[in-house]
Amino acid sequence: MKEKIINTSIHLFDKKGFTETSLQEIVEELGVTKGTFYYYFKNKQELLTDIHLEFIEFLLRNQNAILSDDTKDSEEKLRSMIYMVIHSIKDRKKSARIFFREMRNIGSDYMEQIVQKRDQFRVNLQTLVEDGVEKGEFEMDLDADMVTRGILGMTNWSYYWFDPDGDVSAEKLTSIYLKIILNGIRKQE
Amino acid sequence: MKEKIINTSIHLFDKKGFTETSLQEIVEELGVTKGTFYYYFKNKQELLTDIHLEFIEFLLRNQNAILSDDTKDSEEKLRSMIYMVIHSIKDRKKSARIFFREMRNIGSDYMEQIVQKRDQFRVNLQTLVEDGVEKGEFEMDLDADMVTRGILGMTNWSYYWFDPDGDVSAEKLTSIYLKIILNGIRKQE
Repeated sequence: MKEKIINTSIHLFDKKGFTETSLQEIVEELGVTKGTFYYYFKNKQELLTDIHLEFIEFLLRNQNAILSDDTKDSEEKLRSMIYMVIHSIKDRKKSARIFFREMRNIGSDYMEQIVQKRDQFRVNLQTLVEDGVEKGEFEMDLDADMVTRGILGMTNWSYYWFDPDGDVSAEKLTSIYLKIILNGIRKQE
Repeated sequence: MKEKIINTSIHLFDKKGFTETSLQEIVEELGVTKGTFYYYFKNKQELLTDIHLEFIEFLLRNQNAILSDDTKDSEEKLRSMIYMVIHSIKDRKKSARIFFREMRNIGSDYMEQIVQKRDQFRVNLQTLVEDGVEKGEFEMDLDADMVTRGILGMTNWSYYWFDPDGDVSAEKLTSIYLKIILNGIRKQE
């Protein structure tokens, strides 16, 4: 039931917005009582926090699996990470959009742990970039923090427009982004 | 007065969200009556549309000025465009965040013209990329549409985190992003 509540709410929050969706609408959509809701969540805000945590923890779990795979070099890890984010849009586009849009509505009690996990995701990516430089796979005189934010921007933005059922596959988009990041588009002299 | 209403509302919408900000709060903050508000706007939604239009039209005006500057080659135009977006964060971070977050709250009457202008901005950037390829400045076997969305992702994302008063200047961030886009980060063999 908890998962059902979460999934229904994700759908409603994405469609109408968090503030615009009442608890009444959620339980009506589910055909349950408010008592059922309160058995699982203290309030709507706790539910929103759960959606956020579930999403960022999913990303972190996948990221850690990629980082600890010793058969992959830095480039392959970077590819896997970009693919993971883009591919997850198929299942998690709504969660992601809620994550980016409704951050403001997370209560201050919960904010800290979410921000900490968000930062962790970014820092892990930055470590990968720095490792690649150290191992001589990447070469740059650029600020690793800014490069990391650039990569995150490209991939995170795709939550807003990428249609995994459209003409371009997640694999193809990953290859394009990886190629830009690695080789750029300037004509080689 | 119209501009004052817009500026105060941008501040409130960014802080509290569009739905969460009542008309009453806007006029109280301004110290005017609702009558004054209704003299300029039909309702809150029309005000939100105005904020959106003002923002996207500002970007388009600047973009057109860059595109029509014949003293610049494609690379310089691309640099100017990235810089323009990043630099505008200084004045327009709140407008931009409202733009990205509150799209859903734009009424269907107004949606079409905003979407059309958003698309125009993307298409103009794509044309610049394609021109650069045609002129031999850029070299890529990549889908220009996807490359364009990647560039937009990098730059648009900076609205969420970039602090123009922080350690990294808008100029420096522009150079880093331009360098990634043009040269990538892979070690040249």
